[in-house]
Order: sequence, then C-alpha cells, then structure tokens
Amino acid sequence: MTRLVLTRHGQSVWNKENRFTGWVDVDLTEQGVEEARRGGALLKAEGFAPGFAFTSVLKRAIRTLHLALEGVDRLWIPEEKAWRLNERHYGALTGLDKAEVTEAHGADQVKIWRRSFDIPPPPLPLDDPRHPRFDPRYSSLDPDALPSGESLKLTLERVAPYFESAIAPRLEAGDEVIISAHGNSLRALMKLLFGVPDADIVSLEMPTGNPLMIELNGLKPVSARYLDQDRAQDLPPCP
Amino acid sequence: MTRLVLTRHGQSVWNKENRFTGWVDVDLTEQGVEEARRGGALLKAEGFAPGFAFTSVLKRAIRTLHLALEGVDRLWIPEEKAWRLNERHYGALTGLDKAEVTEAHGADQVKIWRRSFDIPPPPLPLDDPRHPRFDPRYSSLDPDALPSGESLKLTLERVAPYFESAIAPRLEAGDEVIISAHGNSLRALMKLLFGVPDADIVSLEMPTGNPLMIELNGLKPVSARYLDQDRAQDLPPCP
Repeated sequence: MTRLVLTRHGQSVWNKENRFTGWVDVDLTEQGVEEARRGGALLKAEGFAPGFAFTSVLKRAIRTLHLALEGVDRLWIPEEKAWRLNERHYGALTGLDKAEVTEAHGADQVKIWRRSFDIPPPPLPLDDPRHPRFDPRYSSLDPDALPSGESLKLTLERVAPYFESAIAPRLEAGDEVIISAHGNSLRALMKLLFGVPDADIVSLEMPTGNPLMIELNGLKPVSARYLDQDRAQDLPPCP
Repeated sequence: MTRLVLTRHGQSVWNKENRFTGWVDVDLTEQGVEEARRGGALLKAEGFAPGFAFTSVLKRAIRTLHLALEGVDRLWIPEEKAWRLNERHYGALTGLDKAEVTEAHGADQVKIWRRSFDIPPPPLPLDDPRHPRFDPRYSSLDPDALPSGESLKLTLERVAPYFESAIAPRLEAGDEVIISAHGNSLRALMKLLFGVPDADIVSLEMPTGNPLMIELNGLKPVSARYLDQDRAQDLPPCP
C-alpha cells in the first residue's frame, strides 16, 4: 500500500478571468497561493511524506507544488517537471474569454469543445506566436510532436506514457508521490487510475488547490478523498 | 562563452542568530527572502536565461533558487537537488552559538575551526540524533559515506566530483547555469573555478543572496562580478 496525492493548481489569474488558458503560463492569484498553502497544511496533518514529486512546466502547478512541499517540509525531494503533465492545449481558443466564445459560437459548440472526450478545439496555426514551437521550454522537443490543440483524448495520449514510464515505477517501488498538475491532465490520470469511461471522465471536476489523497494497492486505488472536505467534489468509485 | 551564476542563500534564521548551522535545515528570514527576490530581479535585468539549476537539499538554498527562478521567469527549468552542494558539516559545533563557543574554547581555536583549510571541527558522534544518518533525505546513501564533521578540504572533496560529473557537462554544452548553495560549498566551487590557493580560499567571503555572475570560456572564468554592487565583496582574479 502506498499513497498518491493529486493536486490541481490553486486558482490562476485566468481561472478568475474565465479565459481559456491551456499552455499559457499564467500565475496563481493570491487566492490560489492561499489554496496551495492550505493544501500543504492539510497534507502535513495527514503525515504525508512524499519521496518524489512531479509537475508540469507551467508555473501555476510548479508554485502549487512548492507550497505543498513547504507544508510537509519536503522541499528537498527530487522533483521532475514534465510538459506531458501540462494542461490540455486549447488551440485557437487559447486566451479567449469563455463568455465571448460562447456568444460567437453558441453554448452547444462551446460545450463540445470543453466537455467532449475526443473533439479537439480549432488548432492554433503553426506560425501563431502563441504556438509552443516558439516557447524555449519546448525547444529540445521535436516541433512536430508539439500539440496545436488537444481534446481530452489527445491529452490522455501524451499523459499515459509519462505516467507509465516515470510515475508508476515510483509508486510500485512503494514511494509516496505527489503530482501537481491541471484540470485535464489530472482527468487523464484519474481515467488511467480509476478506469473511468470516456463518457464520464469529461464531467469529472476537480477543485483547485485541494489535495486528493489516493491510497493504492500497487497501482489500484482502494480509497480516495479530498483533504479539504468543504470544497470536495464527486469522485469515481474505486475499481 | 557561457554564464554561470553562483548564489549564496539569503540570510537564514541562524545566520541572524550567529549559530553554527552546517546541515541543519533552517529557513530563510524575511530579510533572506527579500535578498533572494532582489537577486532574481537583478538576474532578470541581466537577461540571464539559465537552462539548468542546481541546489543543495537544504531549504534555505532551495527557496533562494526558486525565488531567483521566479525572477527570471524560468521556474520550469530542470533543477537538481544534491547533498554534495550542502553547507560544510559543522560536526559537534552544529547548532551552537558562535559567541559561546568562543568563550569556551578561545578565539584562536574557533578561528582554526572556522577558517583553516583542512582542520575539521570535533565530529558529531554517530549516535547523536543530529547525525545525518538519521535524516530521511540521506537514507538512500551509504551511512558510512556521510560526514560527521568537515573541514573546507573535506567539503571540497565531495563537491568536486559533483561539479565534474553533473555541472561541468552542462556548462561545456553551452547552457547557462545557476547554482544556489552555501558559504563553504561555494568556496569549494570558487576554488575549483578560479584555482584559489588553499591558504587564500578560507578568507573568501560571499554575501548572502547576491548573485555572482561569472562569464566562462569553457570552464575558465573570464570575468566575475556581484550583481548587487552595494553588497559586493572581493573576488579572486580570473586565472
């Protein structure tokens, strides 16, 4: 038996402004910092002692991780920052106001973009300066492998190999692990761990900055609960 | 040509209380946080863009690194936390008040412990609860390889192989690198880089939280300056 904590980053500037964020590197709000700090305190109260930490390459997740690790006095553990844990890439919707997109394209279309499993948003043109090929943090990657816009299914397809190669071996070795990531990369992980069907995973909502403590037998979840019960959301049943 | 930044952590609680700290994991003071933030702003003004970061496993150095990386908006770069960059281990002096030790042992003896090159402090007994063998962050290491008290020479002997195997290859590949560490592990690095004689290295004083920007040709320093010139100290000549 070991423990895995998943934490969605605290509230970001664009969560608050209700904009499609995706891979844009927006920072936490003050409320987001407070959520992350509180997450750290809740983890400490559980005696959580991670041996390894994973996060995306986006600062809202990295800062949330660091505040959690400060809370459990484990800033010293190895941490790996991986683009594969990034938020879903929102394509040409990146940066747009969700209400304005709804006005322009209709609520039904926006719901498809936001909550379908396998329909990606309109792609970001390859020459758009917002394209990840122009961001130095991805410069060592094959530019053709970088997304221009992802469905949840595409997000899952790049999260899964990383989970299998980098994270699962730590859990199988008995290490406690913390992963700080994003609404959709965490949906992908939840789908892998809990075997959630395609049709159901899109409606899984995870609260920001609220650590989800999962007890595992090998890689099989045997229990899961949010540590801040006042801000808990529904969870899938353990398989 | 590439650039290497060395930064000593910002003021710690025990810097302020004038106690021998060594491997004790004391935190930054508020002033230390401010020094580290200012270091980040100064690095940003230089257009410093590190591709890789190294730090010790002690939170005063890790937090200083994170504040520097926030300053240059590069929280996303890989960071490696290595015990070999820790402060010199102060043996049985760990945690003691410098003034009280001076009263008990005399100023000459304390000067030998603090500023000789190769005379270690009295060792910490192996069964002392402060011994690193009882600290989970070193549990994967051979307990017999862990120090019980180090001279600067012994510190250098465990810093040098890490510099050669982990840091030098990054610099030789042309990456800009930042190292956040401690008074004595930085003395060791300065001795390696600048070829400072044994007798001189012990008197090199580096100000806390003040980034030292070194321009390198390969691994050979061609210039070095502190970014906060108001708090600069003397530097060895470039070799």
